Amino acid sequence: MSRQQIVAGAADMLRRRGLNATSIREVAKHAGTPLGSTYHYFPGGKDQLAAEAVRLSADFVSKVLDQQLRQGPAEGVRAFFELWREVVAGNDFKAGCPVVAVAVEEADHPEALAAAADAFRAWSAQLAASLEEHGVEPQRAAQLATLVVGAAEGAVVLCRAQRGIEPLEAIATELTALLASAVRT
Amino acid sequence: MSRQQIVAGAADMLRRRGLNATSIREVAKHAGTPLGSTYHYFPGGKDQLAAEAVRLSADFVSKVLDQQLRQGPAEGVRAFFELWREVVAGNDFKAGCPVVAVAVEEADHPEALAAAADAFRAWSAQLAASLEEHGVEPQRAAQLATLVVGAAEGAVVLCRAQRGIEPLEAIATELTALLASAVRT
Repeated sequence: MSRQQIVAGAADMLRRRGLNATSIREVAKHAGTPLGSTYHYFPGGKDQLAAEAVRLSADFVSKVLDQQLRQGPAEGVRAFFELWREVVAGNDFKAGCPVVAVAVEEADHPEALAAAADAFRAWSAQLAASLEEHGVEPQRAAQLATLVVGAAEGAVVLCRAQRGIEPLEAIATELTALLASAVRT
Repeated sequence: MSRQQIVAGAADMLRRRGLNATSIREVAKHAGTPLGSTYHYFPGGKDQLAAEAVRLSADFVSKVLDQQLRQGPAEGVRAFFELWREVVAGNDFKAGCPVVAVAVEEADHPEALAAAADAFRAWSAQLAASLEEHGVEPQRAAQLATLVVGAAEGAVVLCRAQRGIEPLEAIATELTALLASAVRT
């Protein structure tokens, strides 16, 4: 079991059960790794492990965005929502976003919380840059990008509660139209 | 310490620390109530307590919406975002939404999860009804209402991570303009 597999296991526990339920002990058990070697990998303890899990997820999403935004903001946003649809619907509405998990539970986890803030900012910045490239003025582009990230994350939460994909479909439809009109004008 | 005060205490713990950290024991301690009497009040245990906490919060938000939507959808949406701004900024970015807390942690809590789904549906239905009254066709009204609820909840999460109110401001600005244009057309 590699270090990266442990981090991936922690990300999966975070997006399903939340920060509080994601202990080093549980992650080691989940990964079939001796507890001692898990602590050895992560001297900063749970905060470090959660921060790395958030960064792993953030980087994955950023890579998808980076690739899809080459075809323009509409395609990037479509891929962003598609990615969340797969996470939520593909896990029977029992998994969401590990970055959100870290943001909504007050605990002693400054490194993980900073990683969560960085993740949201990075995704927003990628979307905003693409909108600017397509003629949207900077302030508006930043606003729209924040809306896309916030609304997608909120959509995932609504889908998990309602055990259905409808909220995400509705939100994606609205935002697709809104972005198309922002790019046109 | 009344039953309702215990429920309110549970809602506050949920929105700060999440579902997993909100035990009957912690809530009783927080409320200064003997553990036995807390269990007596909530024979369904933590699931029942969390469900009642979600319903308490859901009803509070619904009442605000009901009152403000009388002045039209724009005023209702303004009040909805203002309410979340007060929760997040008024608690130093350390509190969010108890309904979200229940939705993002997979645990054995069917009653609380159903209450969370009901809460999101109720708020969306109130907003959608107001949009319809102001001439938006039903499917579009439902879509926009879902977007407002999802985006506001996502905004709260982004603000908590970034320890700043900017994401909520940006998202509120975009949605205010979008709704104004939907009502006009």
